[in-house]
Amino acid sequence: MKKSLGAKTLVFPTPTWIVGTYDKEGRPNAMAAAWGGICCSDPPCIAVSLRKATYTYGSLMERRAFTVNVPSDSYVKEADYFGVVSGRDTDKFSATGLTPVRSELVDAPYVEEFPMVLECNVLHVFELGLHTQFVGQIMDVKADEAVLGAADQPEIDKVRPVIFSPANRVYYGVGPSLGHAFAIGKEI
Amino acid sequence: MKKSLGAKTLVFPTPTWIVGTYDKEGRPNAMAAAWGGICCSDPPCIAVSLRKATYTYGSLMERRAFTVNVPSDSYVKEADYFGVVSGRDTDKFSATGLTPVRSELVDAPYVEEFPMVLECNVLHVFELGLHTQFVGQIMDVKADEAVLGAADQPEIDKVRPVIFSPANRVYYGVGPSLGHAFAIGKEI
Repeated sequence: MKKSLGAKTLVFPTPTWIVGTYDKEGRPNAMAAAWGGICCSDPPCIAVSLRKATYTYGSLMERRAFTVNVPSDSYVKEADYFGVVSGRDTDKFSATGLTPVRSELVDAPYVEEFPMVLECNVLHVFELGLHTQFVGQIMDVKADEAVLGAADQPEIDKVRPVIFSPANRVYYGVGPSLGHAFAIGKEI
Repeated sequence: MKKSLGAKTLVFPTPTWIVGTYDKEGRPNAMAAAWGGICCSDPPCIAVSLRKATYTYGSLMERRAFTVNVPSDSYVKEADYFGVVSGRDTDKFSATGLTPVRSELVDAPYVEEFPMVLECNVLHVFELGLHTQFVGQIMDVKADEAVLGAADQPEIDKVRPVIFSPANRVYYGVGPSLGHAFAIGKEI
């Protein structure tokens, strides 16, 4: 018997991603986002949803480009910081000591110290309510050599991404392997 | 120095969710989806993206309702199975021995044995390319009493959701707590 918890944005897992943008004056900014996910394989697209009140919202509407940075768990404090303060009045890169790198493909900065980044151009803007969904076409994925395994695939055990739980608002790491997709189901 | 990996749908983490629908004849069906995420807080919405070729696509266009079921890691084989075969020619519930329960709120079934479910009505359908994104308004979240903690919040350690890595196509569990969101960043 299941208990009703109400109409809420409560699900597991949600990501901890850092969205990088340039503001009107060309200053690099970054914010934490947990509302998002891959939304199309061809063209390859990722969606992130932001409130209009965020500073990043204006930058995205103006620049039509962003990066999705995947922080390692060693940077969980910095990732959280990106979601605590606003780029309107704070230079978050200076405050964290992290390095903004200008993307050569899109008009947005990425975080050098984070192991993996997706460089995106805005393809669609969907107004959904409190949040606006930005669908970005992934122009490239870049990763540190140190997190690459066979066939230059980024390994989740090396990237060590951060999972967000919207229930208790706690961050978690990734656990053990549970088996190969499109394979273990065939045993049924 | 980061290495370019190309324009790909490669990011961590992505979810392992099971999308429940009724087909034209009212038969319950379910499929695995990793392309999705929360996309709006008010109204509370979750997005899942499906290829037009899937059997679920037709059901969703017809019924305009779905459930997002969060499988526990003890059901990872069943979850994978839901992504391996098509409901067009297979009764996946019979094959897995799992139980479809008719939602009282939306025109879709959910999986009784999975600890958590979101019941959704389709609010928007966005054609993005190979995938179509269905934005569902979350009408209710239901969870097994056994996974609830303080204040009836579902606990991720009890739900034990499954993470999908699109790089090596392997499932992973959730790891240890890394700290409280909107809190640990304030130390910076």
